[in-house]
Order: sequence, then structure tokens, then C-alpha cells
Amino acid sequence: MKLSEIGELTLLKQIRKRFTVRAKNIITGIGDDTAVIKPSGKNLLMTTDMMVEGIHFDLNFTTPYQLGFKLVSVNVSDIYAMAGRPQYLLLDIAMNKNTEQSFVNNFFDGIYDAIKLYGVSLIGGDLSSSRKDMAIAATLIGDVRKHVKRSGAKPGDRIYVTGNLGDSACGLEILKRLTPKSIQKVKSEKFPPRTDSPEAKKVKSKKNKNLFITLNSQLSTLNWSIAEPLLKRHLMPVARNSKNFAGYATAMIDLSDGLFIDLTRLCDESRVGAAIFAEEIPVSPQMKKASSVLGMDSLRLATSGGEDYELLFTAPPGKKINAVCIGEIVKSSRKIIDKKGRAKRFSPLGYQHFETQR
Amino acid sequence: MKLSEIGELTLLKQIRKRFTVRAKNIITGIGDDTAVIKPSGKNLLMTTDMMVEGIHFDLNFTTPYQLGFKLVSVNVSDIYAMAGRPQYLLLDIAMNKNTEQSFVNNFFDGIYDAIKLYGVSLIGGDLSSSRKDMAIAATLIGDVRKHVKRSGAKPGDRIYVTGNLGDSACGLEILKRLTPKSIQKVKSEKFPPRTDSPEAKKVKSKKNKNLFITLNSQLSTLNWSIAEPLLKRHLMPVARNSKNFAGYATAMIDLSDGLFIDLTRLCDESRVGAAIFAEEIPVSPQMKKASSVLGMDSLRLATSGGEDYELLFTAPPGKKINAVCIGEIVKSSRKIIDKKGRAKRFSPLGYQHFETQR
Repeated sequence: MKLSEIGELTLLKQIRKRFTVRAKNIITGIGDDTAVIKPSGKNLLMTTDMMVEGIHFDLNFTTPYQLGFKLVSVNVSDIYAMAGRPQYLLLDIAMNKNTEQSFVNNFFDGIYDAIKLYGVSLIGGDLSSSRKDMAIAATLIGDVRKHVKRSGAKPGDRIYVTGNLGDSACGLEILKRLTPKSIQKVKSEKFPPRTDSPEAKKVKSKKNKNLFITLNSQLSTLNWSIAEPLLKRHLMPVARNSKNFAGYATAMIDLSDGLFIDLTRLCDESRVGAAIFAEEIPVSPQMKKASSVLGMDSLRLATSGGEDYELLFTAPPGKKINAVCIGEIVKSSRKIIDKKGRAKRFSPLGYQHFETQR
Repeated sequence: MKLSEIGELTLLKQIRKRFTVRAKNIITGIGDDTAVIKPSGKNLLMTTDMMVEGIHFDLNFTTPYQLGFKLVSVNVSDIYAMAGRPQYLLLDIAMNKNTEQSFVNNFFDGIYDAIKLYGVSLIGGDLSSSRKDMAIAATLIGDVRKHVKRSGAKPGDRIYVTGNLGDSACGLEILKRLTPKSIQKVKSEKFPPRTDSPEAKKVKSKKNKNLFITLNSQLSTLNWSIAEPLLKRHLMPVARNSKNFAGYATAMIDLSDGLFIDLTRLCDESRVGAAIFAEEIPVSPQMKKASSVLGMDSLRLATSGGEDYELLFTAPPGKKINAVCIGEIVKSSRKIIDKKGRAKRFSPLGYQHFETQR
């Protein structure tokens, strides 16, 4: 059944029924002109992110479930990057009227699983049609006792990242080069966020079958165990919670546009420089392997690839921090140092909207 | 100059510079991962609305200035409908990379004038490209001491609206039937929201010239003084502040989808009925005149036309309220009564997204 047969009001009723939560902070959720929320007394964090078909995602590669999940994650990542707790979600969704109800349901499954994972409540939104491309936006409201800005880094602070870089960009490159049959194989995977779910066990059993996926251009193959974590990081990233180290962080940003561009932003706001060590930048063995099969430079993927959704933060030296130290804040220069000690200036290479060249 | 030549980062810098506000509640505005806001202690209101090219607006009819203004107004209207005060705005904007900078500037002029008018601050957003159609969304956060829901209406309450109905729907009908030359005439008008501005004086002097605009289909004309308020109400509605009667209101909703559909919503949520009097529904003399030229039923436009952005509310009898009483809440039936006393059941006729027939 298509949206044109269901109609907006029926769809709204279904969503309202599914997402209604009883929480003492939510005085009025979905279903009135606005949501009404009891404040916690802490400071409020507010962020919004939009994803547009053909720009941020390609429905040939991504499932509606992954799309819904990712839309929530990218917003949660911004709240975590301020050391906050995500709480309330509003959605704006414009879909073609020929969209199948199953697509919409899967999209909201992804939203549902993500908000459960992050402890967020859907409190409102706007549902609309579009002539062709789908456009979705989410606004997330959170709270925080002591927020961490981009601007607090001081010379001498260590620079940390919360996980491997470049996995997502490498996953996107794999997707772009898959044969149609392999794309179908990838789309049939659910990449469940929680490893204890029945879905996760199904995926596990598949892994043992030693699946291969085939790349178009090079007639080469990638073992599923190599491709899976990279594809998963791109298609449905899980945001990194900062609560265990936020107390030490002097500046923080989430890595959405690539290490170089986001570190430049942090340095610009803090009016400092940075020295990072190429050898210290964490990359996964899967990304190293896949990038060599793809004929790409893994360091370039790790430093200039977008959508890592890891956190980048700075903290004074001498703190016990469960993250990877990749360098140090300096007075003004911005350089990356290779294993032979050669320093090279880095500049903000990363994705910019509206650019003619990508 | 096109967006593809300017780039996202330069555009973001311009917006940040223009919209930076120093207010004691805004700890961090545009420019970090999230905005940081000091809570007022009152309850929070949160709402979001999306506008999609080809669905909500047609760039042949509307100027970017009007579009920006309207995007803010439709969200403010929701906050007013809860008896709240609008405060913080977040924007999601997806535009084609071939969009001219002047278009973007005019769009933000409209945003700027609207947020000044309503006392709102822009605190964040997301700027993105789109392949073709423009999609824009705004999320507005406000606060309220005592909110008014849709669900509080009681039998015996009077039903009020804040202004003339059907102007906007009639304005849209005019736009659809204008000759290309008349469309250009309309697009050259600024419809400034504040009547004391230099722009407003210019418009006034034009009025005296007794302009006519020409309709395609009927080869008929409309005097500008007839068309102007209707076009203005459609292209850049000003939201109605509820603060002067909110204390009396038992239930409230803003009229975005048409009187019948929105009154049905209020009745459904309140589990009551309504009796309204056709003769009491306020319509402007301009709408009456224009609808007769268009060959349309003015009552139908007033009851089923969308985008009025007037408030519909209920209040106990015997209160002095500066709004138009159109009927009374009853136990369960929903009827409209004509001047001869004949009652007819009304049903929620109004715009629904995804419907094949409009």
C-alpha cells in the first residue's frame, strides 16, 4: 500500500500510537500544536541535522531502517559532543506519495530502535509529501550540567578520538563499487545496533558462511567480515557517549566532515594549533585491508573522510582517559607528523555542500 | 553568484555573523555542535514545520523573502496556539547548488524580519544541498507558564477565531490564475510586515495608482486593493498572539488545514461536539469580492481553505474577549447552521498530504 492510499492523518495516528511515551517530564507529546516539556533545571542543548536523498543518502544503498537509525545517531552525536544527554526528538519528513507503507514502517523501526538505544523520546514532528526526493530532518533537545565547547583547547592539551577513523568513508567507497547483486546482499543485512538481539545472532551465523561481496570495477572480492563493520559504520553509525571523559574535556567536536576539517574548526574556535601523529590515528584492520583492495590511501580516508561520528576532544595531560591520543594542542601551527618525524601542514580538506567538485 | 561558487562554509560564516545575538539566556548560539540555552524555569514548548518546494510553495509565485518570513510565522503560530512565547529557532535548509546568492540573502532577510517581529533568536541549523527541490524546516522552542491544549473544551464554551478566514486560500486561488505579467507585478511587491517601514510607505503609494491584476482564465481583473490583503495573507502570514485571551481559553489550535478539519481535531481531542453559525464566520470584504470574481463559494473557502494561521479557541461564556465568536461547544454533534437556522453536519474537509486528489 502506498502513502497516497493511506493518507497523512492515518499515518500520523499510527505514529502517535507507536511512539506515545508516559514520562513525567513530557506533559504533552505528539498530538497537539506543540509538545510541552517540564524542564530539568539544567541547561538545554538544541541541535538539528537534515538528510536529503541524492545528497546524504542513496536509496539504492541504504535501507529505510538504516536511514531512520542514522538520522537519530547524527543528532545524538552532536549532543554527546557537548557533553550532554539527549532527550527529546522532533522529526520533519517529506516523502513521495508513491512511497510504500512498508518503507515508512521500516524507517520508523530504525527511528524506534535508535531512540530506545539512546534513551530519547519522540515528541513531535511534521509529515509532508515531496515531488521526488525524500528530505528528512531531526531536531534533538538535550540537557547538560556543564557543557564542553569547541573553544576551550589550550596548548599542552592532548588530542583524543573515541574510535577508528575512516571506516565510514571506506564503507561508502565499497558501496559505490559493489555489483548490483552484492548491493542486494548488503541491503538484506540488518546491522542491528544491539549485539544481543535475535537479529544480531542471525548476522553472526551468516558471517560463518564466509560470504564474499564483489566489487564492480576491479573484479575483486571482499570478505564479508572485512566489509561488514565498514558498511555498518557508514550506514548506521552509533554515536559515542562522552559521559566517561566529559569531565576532563577542555574542547570537543564530533567528527562529521573529516578529521582535518573538524580539528581545524576546533583549533579555529580555540585559537590554537595542533600537532597530530599519523601513526597514532586509529584505523581498523578491516579499513586497512579494504582500502588496499580499493587502491585507496587509508591515511587519507582516516583524515579527510567524512561521517566518522567519533568524538574529537582535548584534555590536559596526565588524565586516565579511555580514548586514543593522536597528538597535542600547540600554539598555532597545524601539522601532521609521519613515523619518520617529518611534519606536514594540514588544511581543512573535507566535504562542503554546494561544491561543484566533490 | 551561485551557491556552488560561494561554498557552505562561507555562507555559514555570513549567517553566523548576521544572526549572532547577545542575550543572557543564550550561552552558545550558532557555531558549535549544539546551541546552549539557560532555561527560564517555565515549561518548554517545542514544534517543527517543514515546507517543500512544489508542495507547500511555488517559486513562480512566492519570493524568497516571503518564504523565509512564512516559515517562521507558521511555527510561531503553533507556539501561540499553546499560549506560549516563541524564543529559539533552528533552521534546516536544503537548496540546489545553482541557487543565486541573492535568493539566499532575500530568504534570510525574511527570516530576519520575522524573528525580529516575534522576538525570536536564531540559534542553530543545518545547511545542505539538494538535487532539485528546495526543502526547508524550522524548529521553534518557546516557553509557557500555563499551556492551553486542544483537549480542554467543555459543552457551553464559546468558539472563537482571531480573524477573517479564507483570505489565504483565496489568495492562493488568485495566484494560480494570474497572467504571467500579473505574477511579476505581485512578485515585485514586498508586503512588509510592519506598516511603519519605508517599504510599507512605498506599497501605500502604489495602491493609490489603482493597480489591476489580470486573471488568466476569466479575462477578468481584480483591483490591487482587493487582491493585496489576500495575497499577503497567503504569502507571508503574521501569526496571531494569544496572550490577551490565553488566560480564558479552555482549548486552542491554530488554523492551518481549514476550519472544519481543525475544529474537528479540537472536538476529537476534547471529546465534544460543536455548533457553528455560518453567518458569524468572519470573512473579509476583499475575500467576498474576489471569490465572486473567481466564481468560488466564500463560505467554502472560509471553512475548508487551509493556511489561515488564525487561532481557533474556546472559552467559557461571559468573558470579554477580543476575538470573533462563531459558535458554541455542544455535547457531541458537529454542525454548521445557516442564517435560516438549517443545521448541516460538517466533516473534516481539508488538505491531507499524500492524497492523490487535492
